[in-house]
Formats: sequence, structure tokens, C-alpha cells
Amino acid sequence: MVDSRTAVLDGIRQMHWESRAVPQPGPLEVRVRVRRVGVCGSDVHYYTHGRIGGFVVEAPLVLGHEVSGVVDAVGEGVTRLEVGQRVALEPGYPCRRCWYCKTGHYNLCPSMTFMATPPVDGALSEYVVWPEDFTFAVPDNVSDDAAALLEPLAVGIWAARRGGVKPGDTVAVIGAGPIGCTSIQAARAAGATTVIAVDLEDFRLDLARKVGATHTVNARNGDAVAEIRRVTAELTGLPLSHAGVDVAFETAGSVPTCRMSLQAPRTGGVTVLVGLPPDPEVSLDIVSAASRETDIRGIFRYANCYPTAIALVASGAIDLDALVTHRYPFSEAQAAFEFADHEKRASMKVMIDVG
Amino acid sequence: MVDSRTAVLDGIRQMHWESRAVPQPGPLEVRVRVRRVGVCGSDVHYYTHGRIGGFVVEAPLVLGHEVSGVVDAVGEGVTRLEVGQRVALEPGYPCRRCWYCKTGHYNLCPSMTFMATPPVDGALSEYVVWPEDFTFAVPDNVSDDAAALLEPLAVGIWAARRGGVKPGDTVAVIGAGPIGCTSIQAARAAGATTVIAVDLEDFRLDLARKVGATHTVNARNGDAVAEIRRVTAELTGLPLSHAGVDVAFETAGSVPTCRMSLQAPRTGGVTVLVGLPPDPEVSLDIVSAASRETDIRGIFRYANCYPTAIALVASGAIDLDALVTHRYPFSEAQAAFEFADHEKRASMKVMIDVG
Amino acid sequence: MVDSRTAVLDGIRQMHWESRAVPQPGPLEVRVRVRRVGVCGSDVHYYTHGRIGGFVVEAPLVLGHEVSGVVDAVGEGVTRLEVGQRVALEPGYPCRRCWYCKTGHYNLCPSMTFMATPPVDGALSEYVVWPEDFTFAVPDNVSDDAAALLEPLAVGIWAARRGGVKPGDTVAVIGAGPIGCTSIQAARAAGATTVIAVDLEDFRLDLARKVGATHTVNARNGDAVAEIRRVTAELTGLPLSHAGVDVAFETAGSVPTCRMSLQAPRTGGVTVLVGLPPDPEVSLDIVSAASRETDIRGIFRYANCYPTAIALVASGAIDLDALVTHRYPFSEAQAAFEFADHEKRASMKVMIDVG
Amino acid sequence: MVDSRTAVLDGIRQMHWESRAVPQPGPLEVRVRVRRVGVCGSDVHYYTHGRIGGFVVEAPLVLGHEVSGVVDAVGEGVTRLEVGQRVALEPGYPCRRCWYCKTGHYNLCPSMTFMATPPVDGALSEYVVWPEDFTFAVPDNVSDDAAALLEPLAVGIWAARRGGVKPGDTVAVIGAGPIGCTSIQAARAAGATTVIAVDLEDFRLDLARKVGATHTVNARNGDAVAEIRRVTAELTGLPLSHAGVDVAFETAGSVPTCRMSLQAPRTGGVTVLVGLPPDPEVSLDIVSAASRETDIRGIFRYANCYPTAIALVASGAIDLDALVTHRYPFSEAQAAFEFADHEKRASMKVMIDVG
Repeated sequence: MVDSRTAVLDGIRQMHWESRAVPQPGPLEVRVRVRRVGVCGSDVHYYTHGRIGGFVVEAPLVLGHEVSGVVDAVGEGVTRLEVGQRVALEPGYPCRRCWYCKTGHYNLCPSMTFMATPPVDGALSEYVVWPEDFTFAVPDNVSDDAAALLEPLAVGIWAARRGGVKPGDTVAVIGAGPIGCTSIQAARAAGATTVIAVDLEDFRLDLARKVGATHTVNARNGDAVAEIRRVTAELTGLPLSHAGVDVAFETAGSVPTCRMSLQAPRTGGVTVLVGLPPDPEVSLDIVSAASRETDIRGIFRYANCYPTAIALVASGAIDLDALVTHRYPFSEAQAAFEFADHEKRASMKVMIDVG
Repeated sequence: MVDSRTAVLDGIRQMHWESRAVPQPGPLEVRVRVRRVGVCGSDVHYYTHGRIGGFVVEAPLVLGHEVSGVVDAVGEGVTRLEVGQRVALEPGYPCRRCWYCKTGHYNLCPSMTFMATPPVDGALSEYVVWPEDFTFAVPDNVSDDAAALLEPLAVGIWAARRGGVKPGDTVAVIGAGPIGCTSIQAARAAGATTVIAVDLEDFRLDLARKVGATHTVNARNGDAVAEIRRVTAELTGLPLSHAGVDVAFETAGSVPTCRMSLQAPRTGGVTVLVGLPPDPEVSLDIVSAASRETDIRGIFRYANCYPTAIALVASGAIDLDALVTHRYPFSEAQAAFEFADHEKRASMKVMIDVG
Repeated sequence: MVDSRTAVLDGIRQMHWESRAVPQPGPLEVRVRVRRVGVCGSDVHYYTHGRIGGFVVEAPLVLGHEVSGVVDAVGEGVTRLEVGQRVALEPGYPCRRCWYCKTGHYNLCPSMTFMATPPVDGALSEYVVWPEDFTFAVPDNVSDDAAALLEPLAVGIWAARRGGVKPGDTVAVIGAGPIGCTSIQAARAAGATTVIAVDLEDFRLDLARKVGATHTVNARNGDAVAEIRRVTAELTGLPLSHAGVDVAFETAGSVPTCRMSLQAPRTGGVTVLVGLPPDPEVSLDIVSAASRETDIRGIFRYANCYPTAIALVASGAIDLDALVTHRYPFSEAQAAFEFADHEKRASMKVMIDVG
Repeated sequence: MVDSRTAVLDGIRQMHWESRAVPQPGPLEVRVRVRRVGVCGSDVHYYTHGRIGGFVVEAPLVLGHEVSGVVDAVGEGVTRLEVGQRVALEPGYPCRRCWYCKTGHYNLCPSMTFMATPPVDGALSEYVVWPEDFTFAVPDNVSDDAAALLEPLAVGIWAARRGGVKPGDTVAVIGAGPIGCTSIQAARAAGATTVIAVDLEDFRLDLARKVGATHTVNARNGDAVAEIRRVTAELTGLPLSHAGVDVAFETAGSVPTCRMSLQAPRTGGVTVLVGLPPDPEVSLDIVSAASRETDIRGIFRYANCYPTAIALVASGAIDLDALVTHRYPFSEAQAAFEFADHEKRASMKVMIDVG
């Protein structure tokens, strides 16, 4: 069999090509011929900084964890998948045996193996081997692009689930990048009827509206929190002192948006911290949040979101293809990272066409 | 002021007209000029049988509890509503002081005042007085018909809430009458992506599909439970022994559908009993249900569903106007009940245009 | 190494001894030298009937699934346990890879391996091999007997968890056998302050009171449901029409107690079906239950209850030793089953001292 | 009838006596002859500072909101209470009509009437009139002191409920004052088996242990967070990176304890902010908390906790009398406040014996 051509990061903004041996699937594993890899902000950060917090790229690393492809070979004991099936890869698998795994919170497993997180390689390669139970068949009406983007959608679904979004809810999504947009989509799918997107770029707000935002606020032009309170007070009849959204999502990862996200919910509402500011210490008006009984909930990846994501995309409830604004062939993978780094304001999702 | 023309039930299939004094709103009450009253199965049952279970019509009774209108006068202390506003009436109000009321389960309040339930009069009258806090303003894009039908939608929303319907869920709705249809709509609004409607009438199944069912089964033509298991096994990959819907709703109120609704959920799923068989004792395979950990949950009216219902209809997520198949002027109110009784199979919702 | 002496059921009321090869632990497994095996009603049923529902003893079967012992050898990769540690065995382990396993509901896994359930052997043997992740170290102050009885306590904890017992709750436990008693203990540990035990035997009710029941009703002497409503109406101030316990547990597995358990909860309460009647079809007043919004929830074994059970016993909150009324040496294992079968009324838990 | 002797705060550390007209109960109200009023930290703060945050004492104010007494007269329509009954007063009542009230979150009602919060008078008076539905009969075995202290226990119960404490949980309570102690008691009543109390005063830690703490840490002598992680890692087998308590309660209201409370939970645990630092802005490592999925939840008073509190105290599960360390006659009310202010370190609860 031919080798598996692989893009390897070996320094800041340095990538080279390798021909690696095509991996063989072990028991309960499948081999996937990769078709699409989406470029995620975390990939770009490893590319430009060589680290994210405590995760440091110390050896050559393969990036990419938004992955779709076709099953190419199956290992012993595989029963749910067969060669030729189109699939999406949930990019992390846990130990399956610890308390977190047993209780359904496998995203918190201390022994997680997660793609493109040092020292685990990602999927910018022609072939990858992955456990069957974290590889999901997708129906024909889910495109290869969409199958790769189930990953950021899983983040949005987890955020909406952690936020407890319910039918008829009002929601604010602060930051309208790819994760902001999938959070909007997930919130709408959970029945939110008012979704206020906040960003600094009209390009992103326009796309946010296209995928489900009912209101948009460019924070350069006004006070987003005041607007959120005004809109929700009018809808609910609550006094301004108590008004706000049922659930606010922070997806921009900056200090001002983090602070904003604590002021956006109504008394008794919820803030979900999806993005994270670069500096861990943030000065917050925790007293107001606590005495309004605003719950603050972070998220770490997701658990059990792929089946939900597939059902929502396959049913037509969510359109992931709308998020792809730029596309690169596999041979220009490095250019894709450079572009994603420099044109963040004018792009949403950059997709690499691996094969 | 003119009198309030009122349709009064005074015997089985006997109605007469009365001119009653126009009621005056007390403190925290509003007077509403009624516009639409929907005919509900329970109204028809009082009309044809004079009783529902322990509730017996012993004195003349005004029917009608699906009500929309316009605020006509406001009592002392009213602040949220004003004369001229279009409103929907939540037809029951509780004591506000008991343990059920304090804990948010006011639908179970032992001192409920509920329209058209003996001895409390309903709304088939030109004017009704009602507490401000159970009278809801509706926006312009919610029609008078839709405003009246917020009531059966509230039942569907409560059923979906009790069932815990989540994004990506599979759902079966057994019985595709008005409550079956609003249950379908509420389940879709909560994110269900597969909704299997079961009925004996194609007329109803066609309408069910129109309002959101993704699959329909005419139970005259096949084994509905087998079909539910087949469809869901294919979607989820669960073995047939465990397959089934996440949530099954029984809305037909017969013994066979009640039994069916216990077999429809997957292992670990939920059955919501919305309809109720005429005879309280039902022989059920409770052992299978229990050892599959299928939860069985009944519903009694609803609590806190009107704001959700209004948000869903106003946002366009749910179309209640699609349910109205027949319409009668107020002067032919009795004909509306006769029609609803005789043409159940070929009608969905019959609406009375009060003014 | 010596052989593993094993008691084998090979027909109704027929047991023989075998000397089996001492099993070797594979990767992530441990070998346990068994110390105690409790006799469970299901063991007795296999012994006397050769089957439970669809599970039929078709080949020789080793009984026993309430097991404690000492780690005797560890397989490759074992890190949490070492030779010499006293342990309790959670007697079932799942596939770890299906949807139920991933979402924390491993008790519903279609590929469960559960001791003493045909064709899987139980623990009436000197040595058993078991996965490390379902083998739990117990502290010194938990006796070998108590460690074995963590199994029926896990059932009680799961029942209380499924019932949602909260501090200050009123609870009825119908049937005061071993599972009834552990349900009482689990409900008390969850904060229930009123626990009404119902049985036909004073011997059992006395023990129930000793382990936490605050009220006992011998159903031979009166109407248990009426008494439950009287007591709870007095405590809560609810009218008799609405009064009842927050959570009722059916643990006796008969038709009358099953019916009783649906009448015992307050409006809006919960019935947990722990026991199951011998005949699957039961005629129930489902209409009253549903229109009172009484949830009916079955249980199937348990998930993630062992750590909770150990914490509760080790802290002194629950006394499992109090449940052991009779004791047999390993050599008289068959006599233990005969006794448990014939003296059900005058015994609680029969314990076999394996080594 | 005689007048109602009343202690009135009319300036910082200034109180005078007034003889006010004995109030008459209106419909659905009762008049209570006050017996005990506990001194709360918030009372002391109004006494020493004349304000708490935005609540400013601008007119003479009666302090006291931990209140027990005897029903002295009943208004029209009162049915649950009668003259002579011993009662506890839940010191706040809501509008009963807004969305928060209808959904069971009445503690967040924008129109709350709460004792001893300007401009609403408290209970340091011989007689008070209060709504029947927020006045609770207590059984004989609940002392007058304990009945008054149901109020701080309600705070502890609400904190435990918001924290989701479950049987077998590990808990840290940071700050062992009156609210810390009732949080410990409520957590134990909910089944927590490991409760680590942290304070700077051994006097308080000794009392904390008496009412249920299983471990105590004097933060002057060591690193409380390190100790919490060590203890819980040992109990659960989690790695130190993930170890911590299931639920941490911050009750001391300082910046360092607030920061500590975010580090104390295990990955996936909960922090409940009960106390609040004096300055609203707090610099927090929100990134770590969020990426560990540690939920942060504040509390604002409580809802529906009095029935639970009464059940727990009446059952003997919780001993509130143990918290009373000092006692003053009504005539020395001001001395009680001075003492509570100066002897915070050497006292727990100061009780005023009104009559």
C-alpha cells in the first residue's frame, strides 16, 4: 500500500511533509481515508505560538481535529462500520474506565487522547486509525465539509446543553466566529426564539444572522449589554433591573467579553464560558452575578454530542456548509493556516480538502 | 353598557342564550372582549355526556377555555396590560399561596379555578373578567385564532417538557388529533428530529406531517410499535431489543394506544400519558416497562407554558393557524359542538368566532 | 496453586461441588479470593425455579453476586488495586463502548456481563477474576459482610436516586425485605425524614425500624394507603385528595403492592418500581396516577452506586451488618439456599462465609 | 390592648425604643407575639454601617429577621393557623404574580417584601403581622430558639440545594460562622459524608465539627486547598490534577476565600458563593474554573426551604440549638448588637429573647 502523506508542524510557522507508513487498525479500530480537515483556532494557535496554556509542542506534531473521511479498513471485532462508509471522527477518546467515563462525563477523563493536542497527532494526513466507537457514519445528505464541521458544532451543542437552553428562551452569543455561530445554531435547535449575536465585525454578524441570530449588535457602535437588557425587558415584561437573556454564551475569549457575558443574563440566568481569555486572572463583578443567582459554567470540549449533531444536520435543522468561507487543497495546507491567521476578520471557516 | 351575550349549556346537547350583565374587573383583573373560542374535546364531552370523570355539570355551565380577545377595561392596580391590547387567556388560575403554587407547580394547586370545568364558567360569552397575571398580550403576528390555540399548544409544550424532549431526539406521537398535533409541534420546537405520528385516520396523519411529523403510520395498516422500533434501530444502531423512541406521547386516550405507548420507547426512554382512557383501570405490561427503565409520566394541564407558547408562535417556529379546519360564527355555537362531535375524523380544530 | 472449589447449580434444587482451575487475571483484571457471598432472592429463584423471566439456566451455573474478598493477584496494567487489599465486587460490567455506556447509563448496556445470570457464572467459588474498574477497595471499618451487602445497598441507592429523594422528604417503602431495607437506608441517607415501611411480617417491620423507618404499617392490620395519606396530610397540611408521600418504593413484587405503590404518592409524587410482579400484565389505575402527575419509574440494577455505597457505610451513615440474620459456612452453601427459601418470613439476609 | 414595644435603629450604632400600636392582621394574615429574634451578620452591618450595598437605612428601621413566636390573632380567611400555635416566620414574601413567583423562584421576585431590609421593618418588636402562607407552625420538639434559627438554616439548605449535594458527596465549607455551620448541617442532611470546614478561628472550627464537619482546617496553619485536594484524592482515587470536593461553599465573604472556593472543587465540581466580598470586583482564575467545568453559583436568600428545615430539625437530623452561644433579654437588644460586632471570633449565634 502507498504511504500516508502527512503535514507535520515542527516549529512556529514551520511545516513539512512526511510520508508515513499507512497505519493498521487494531481490534475495535477502523482506518479512515481522510477527506476534509477544518482549520480551528486552536490549530492556528499551535501553528503561530507553539503552545496553548500548558500544552506545549515539544516534538513534531500533526494538526487537525475537525475530520471527515471514508472507512478504508476495519480491525478485528468492528461491527458497526464497514469499508466504504462515509464517517466523521470525534477527535478525542477517553480511558472508558475511570469515574468520569462511567458517569457519562468522558470529556473530563484524565486520560483523554485528543487529536492535535501535544503529544497526540491530529488528522492532517491521508490515513488515520481511530476507535470504532468514536467514529460515526454520516448519511448521504451530510456533506464531507459538514461532517468535518460536526466537531465545532459539538462544541456549540455542549455549550447549549450546559446552558440549559429551552424552547422559547432568549440567548446572547458574544463573539460570532465559528464557535459563536455553532452556538447560535445549537441554541436555535434547542428552541431559543431570540438570539442576540454580538461581535466587532459586520462580516461575522451577517453570517451569524444567516445561521439563526434574530438580532445583531456591533459592539463598536453601542452598549451591547444595554441593548440586550432593552430587548429582553420588552419581550418579557421584566424590569430592567432583572431583565437579560436566559443564557449568555461567551465565545470570543477576551476580558471585556468575559465581563459582558456576566452582565447579559437576566436575574436567575446562566453564563456559559466557551471562549477563554488569554490571561487566566480576570477581574469580575462576581458579587452582582452571585446575588442575581447567575450561574457561571465553563465547558471543556464535549461529551455525547456527535449523535445529536448528526441528527440535527441530517434533518436540515442546522446548515454547516454555510460556515465554510474558504477552501485549500491538501498540498497548500500551510497556506490555509497562514490565511486563517491573517484573515480572521474576513473569514469564517477555512477547510482543507485532503482527498 | 350593553349586556354580555352568553351561550349556556343546560343539559346534554342543550344550549340556550343568555344576556348576562357585563362583568366588572376587580383589583388586578382585566375585562376582555372575547374574539375567538376554540372547541376542545373536553367541551364536546361535557356537551354530549354532561360530565368528565368526577366533574359533573349540575348547574348551567358556560363552555369554552381556548380564548383570545381584546382588553376592554382594567381593574385597580393593573400595570402590564392596557385597554385595546390583544390577549390570550390562560384559562386556569391557582390560589398562589399553597405549596404547589410556591414551588412552581401551580397546575396541581388544589384550589384551581379553571374555565368550563364545573362549577366554573368558560368563555363562550362576549365579555369575561380574568386576572391580569393569567392574561397575556400577544404580538401582531399572532392571529386571533392562534392566540386562542395557545391553550392546546400549552398542553403540547407541557407534554414535551415533562417528556424531556431534547435536540436530536426521536419521538412518537400516538394519536394525531389537536393535542397530538401540538405535541408534535412542541417536540419539534424542542429539537426532536424524528417524529413518528400514529393514527387511524389519514386525514389527521396528513395534517400531522404538515405540522412537523417526519414519519406517519396508519395503525390500521400495520404494527406501529414494530415500525417505531425498526426506524429507530436504523437511526441509532441500537439492537431491536433496546430500540425505540426517546419519548412517546399517548394522546388518543384509548386502552390499545396506552399499551402501545409503553412499548414505543427505547430502553431508558419515556412515555408521557397525555390522553387518558375512559376506564381508569388499564392492564399494562408494567414489568417490561419497569425493567427497561421506561419512565411513565402523566400530565395535568400545564404550568408556565403560555410565555413559551407565545414566543414559539411569534417567532414562526410553530404555526397554529394550520390546525383550524372549520369555523362557526358565535350565533351558531351549538352547531359547532354538534359538528365537532360528529366529524371528528374529518376535522382538526373547530373555531368559534365570538366577535 | 490449589484449585478453586466451586458450588455449581445443575438442576432445580441441585448443587454439586467442582474443583475448577484457579483463574488467571488478564490485562486490567484482578483475581479475588472470595470471603463472603450474600444470598439474594434472585439466586434463590434460580435455585428453586431454574429461571427468572427470559433468563433460563440451561447449563450448570454458579450462583452468587453479592461478593466481597481480598485481591489475590493483579493482571497487567492494574494500578488502583494491589494484592492483599480488601474489596467488594460490583457484579456486572458493561461493554464500555455503546451509547448507554458513554452516557453514564451502563446498567442498560445491551452487552452487560452480570454474575449469576445465565450463562455468566457467579461468585460461589474460592477465586474469581474480575475487571479492576468494577472492583472496589473498602476501608477497614467496612466488614466483609457489609462489603458483600454493598450490592443490595446499590439497588437501594439507585432506587432513591431514580426517585429523586431529597432532604425532608416523606417516603413509603412497600415491602421490608432486604431490598426494602436498603431502600429505607438509602432514602434516609438522602435526607428523607419520614419513612413509612409497609409489610405483612412484624419481624421485617421491626428490622425496618431498626435501620431507619420512622413509621411501620402491617398491612394485615389496616389500610396502608389510608395511613400513608393520613400521616402525610398531617405533616404537610395538604388536603387528603392531594396528600401522600413524595416517593413510594415498591419492593415486594406482588400485584397488590404494585397497585398500592401507585396510590401512595402525593399529587406530583413519584413511584419507583423496584420489585416486579411475577406476571408482567398488571391492571393499574393509570388514569389516576397520570392525572395526579405521579411519575412511575422502574429500575434495572444500578449504575455508579458503589462509590456512594462505600462512602455511606464507611461514614457510619448506613449499617449493613444489621441486615445479616443468618450465616452458613461455604461447605453448607446449598443449605443456605434451602433456608432462605423456606424461612423468608423469619430471616432477612443469609450470608455464606466462603473463606 | 397594650402597645407593641419596638427597638428602632435611627443612626449608626443608635437605637431607641418605641411603643407602637399593636398591628391588626388583614385578610390571610396572622399576628404573632414574637419570642426570639436571632442576630444576623446583616443586622449587625446595618447597625454598624447603616447600609449594605445599595440598601441604605434612610429612615428609622426595625432590625431582626430570624423570628419565632406564637400566633396571637388571625385575619379573615386564615385556615392553616390558629391562635396559640408556635410558629416561625419566613421573613420575606413575594408578589405571588410575577414570572419568578409562578415558576417557583420567588426569592428572585422584583417586588419582595423582606424584613429588616430598608424600608421594610424587621421583627424586633413585641408583635408583628405577617402573611399566613409565610408563617409556619413548628412542632413541640423544635425550641423557640431553633424556630428562629430556621432562617439561617434555610440559607444553608438553599446553598446545598443550589450546590446539588448528594449522598456520599465530599464538601468543603469555607468560613465556619453561623451560615457556614448551617451549610455544613444542610450538606450532611443531604448525605455528604466528607465535610471539610475551613476557618481562621479554632472556636468556630470546634463548633463546626460538633455540627457535622468531618475534617477541619485552620487556614492560618496551612494550605487549605492543598489539604482539600489531598483528602479527596485519597478518598476518590482521582489524580491531584482532578481531585477536589464535589461542592465547595464560600461563606466567609472575603476575596481570598472567594478565590479559594474556586480551587477547592474537583474537575466537574461546583462552587456555591454564599458569602460575598465587600468589594464587588474580584480577580479570579476564571480560566481554570471554566476549563475544569467547575460551575459557579451564587445564592440570593432561598425559596421553599422552611418546610424542609422544619422537617430536618423536627426529625433530629439537625440540631440548631447547638449554634446559640450567647443570649440577651429584649431590653438589652442594643447590647446584643454591640456584642455580636465585637466578639465575632468567640461567638456563634447571639439570640435575643423578646418575650
